[in-house]
Amino acid sequence: MREVAIIGIGQTPVGEHWDRSLRVLAFEALSAAMRDAQLERIDALYVGNMLSGELTGQEHLGALIADFAGLRGIEAMKIEAACSSAAAALRVGYIAVAGGIHDIVACVGVEKMTDQQGSVATSGLATAADAEYEALHGLSFVGINALLMRRYMHEHGYKKEDFANFAINAHRNAVNNPNAMFPYPISAQQFAEAKPIADPINLLDSSPIADGAACVILAPLSMAREFTDKPVRVRAIAVATDTVALHDRRDPLYLEGAAISAQKAYAAANVGPSDIDLFELHDAFTIMSALSLEAAGFARRGRGVALALEDEISVRGRIPITTMGGLKARGHPVGATGLYQVVEVVQQLRGEAGANQVPNAQLGMAQNIGGSGATVVTTILERI
Amino acid sequence: MREVAIIGIGQTPVGEHWDRSLRVLAFEALSAAMRDAQLERIDALYVGNMLSGELTGQEHLGALIADFAGLRGIEAMKIEAACSSAAAALRVGYIAVAGGIHDIVACVGVEKMTDQQGSVATSGLATAADAEYEALHGLSFVGINALLMRRYMHEHGYKKEDFANFAINAHRNAVNNPNAMFPYPISAQQFAEAKPIADPINLLDSSPIADGAACVILAPLSMAREFTDKPVRVRAIAVATDTVALHDRRDPLYLEGAAISAQKAYAAANVGPSDIDLFELHDAFTIMSALSLEAAGFARRGRGVALALEDEISVRGRIPITTMGGLKARGHPVGATGLYQVVEVVQQLRGEAGANQVPNAQLGMAQNIGGSGATVVTTILERI
Repeated sequence: MREVAIIGIGQTPVGEHWDRSLRVLAFEALSAAMRDAQLERIDALYVGNMLSGELTGQEHLGALIADFAGLRGIEAMKIEAACSSAAAALRVGYIAVAGGIHDIVACVGVEKMTDQQGSVATSGLATAADAEYEALHGLSFVGINALLMRRYMHEHGYKKEDFANFAINAHRNAVNNPNAMFPYPISAQQFAEAKPIADPINLLDSSPIADGAACVILAPLSMAREFTDKPVRVRAIAVATDTVALHDRRDPLYLEGAAISAQKAYAAANVGPSDIDLFELHDAFTIMSALSLEAAGFARRGRGVALALEDEISVRGRIPITTMGGLKARGHPVGATGLYQVVEVVQQLRGEAGANQVPNAQLGMAQNIGGSGATVVTTILERI
Repeated sequence: MREVAIIGIGQTPVGEHWDRSLRVLAFEALSAAMRDAQLERIDALYVGNMLSGELTGQEHLGALIADFAGLRGIEAMKIEAACSSAAAALRVGYIAVAGGIHDIVACVGVEKMTDQQGSVATSGLATAADAEYEALHGLSFVGINALLMRRYMHEHGYKKEDFANFAINAHRNAVNNPNAMFPYPISAQQFAEAKPIADPINLLDSSPIADGAACVILAPLSMAREFTDKPVRVRAIAVATDTVALHDRRDPLYLEGAAISAQKAYAAANVGPSDIDLFELHDAFTIMSALSLEAAGFARRGRGVALALEDEISVRGRIPITTMGGLKARGHPVGATGLYQVVEVVQQLRGEAGANQVPNAQLGMAQNIGGSGATVVTTILERI
């Protein structure tokens, strides 16, 4: 197996892009990444997307985007793993380059959610849950997370307000991200007064649906310097799964898929949590931040929220998270998010994170979570 | 890169499975393949599916099926490339095994289409076309194929009846396939009198929507005999793309994606069309059979239909096609079809095709076509 590097990154602003269609967004991110790597041609395209069929009546994104980007003919396909679709697409690209099948591969995550009524997007997102045992009974995604948060508060003795700093930290970081959907700070009081959505989850616990696209281009590490002065090494990318339905879990508050995925990635990279300088986690809801920190080994059980309370998650903290705004404030175009996370880790490792730069960032990790933890992709990247 | 073998195959009957859900169908095919290879564990699962989100409200099939099959924890994801989703999933599995990332990989294609009204399935299938330039104007998939067939008849001087033998041959072969949806013969007169759907396409030019699942298990060739006495070698599997919209093609009657895909596969396998003993092509409509035969080099331009007229496509003909019934008579569960095709080629190469056995089949090819030719996956397999 060959070592693999990231040689190019691209992204669109996250937001409500009513003036641009799905293929345009994907093209913008892809062409930005190709410019970044000074490429005119790639060997294959793997598209991460969850809901294009449900929300825009368009499947077949591989061929569609390849053609629209002037790459007609190349190998292309779409990868879907619910909210972890984009990182799953990166995994396929990684396999192709590491295995010597392709040299230059683009992985694009794209989602367009805001053209539809919110209820349509909510129904679409529920397809990440178990259709026959969860969605059938009306359980939405925010409902699932509300169950988790309520149980977590009960088990570990937290109050709703204790989760505030996950959102406050994300919004603080988004201020300096020109691609963020909500680039403004929020206060603890605003959090406390935010509108309830599914008790105990309120509006500021929740990431927004959004439109956007992000792209990462991979190449063998041995070729990387032909394309960039700042290659980033992929130390590991690991996928693990768990039950889709919450009620099938041994312990709903332990994200076993996230734990296995992180452990596989740590083992492949030969590092541990203490070696990681920043962690782009999947803060779809504040409770997911806490559970992800615990499953990935950054906090003991029940102590994920404590990390936020102690402000150890800021850019200067012990384990910086959501350094460019996270799903909460950068925005969560669901099938694109996993590649936004990886693009942001690359910005940090290249030293291009501006005011949000994590000092001396050497090893960065991203964790993209599908559903309530049924598919989890953990990626570890290294500055070289 | 390692050589790759198919060590196990499984399939469900194709039909209207109102009593079994999508996950049950996938599980039945997967477990049949695992029994075939005497396996209790696999390393990864790649699921080919096109329309689970639109038709059953269920995305996230990778984790869902892995868990339901007792494989919780393993790497799993869904691959979508319209009607070529299943072969695209096989391509990802092949890359993972050839590249040394995984040893034992299952590729499952599954689709459940008949629980919905036909109009819903028709709308779903239109997501394989260009949503903004084709489907928006009401052009359905059968409409697109009708345009192609009409133009082909005009350019090359054929009549509607000249396409009959594609359907007659498929139905004749389906009689001996216990998994076929329509296991009965049809006559030229029945073809001539069949109900028109989108002129010049009639009911018997068209493959049926259906439910079903098929599975192929891959392993390194060097390990294959630990699992089976009859491994089949994957000589090549190649993906190519073309424009999604018909009007963007240089020549709508030349399936450039199919041609590039076949050429890449021939080059990788170091063989040509004359070496192929049977060809499981994508007969979604009879016109697609003709265009596929031409693009893959079995007939000159405009001569694909002549092969059928001369009955060179039967099991004893020069190039046997749809030897187990094809999409037409075995049935076309759209995101599963590509793996049904490969399973059937494996049956032929193992000598397990019963009354439909192609004598001395040594090299078999399958071609799975997405949309009207925008994604094409060509697989060449060899008896060893």
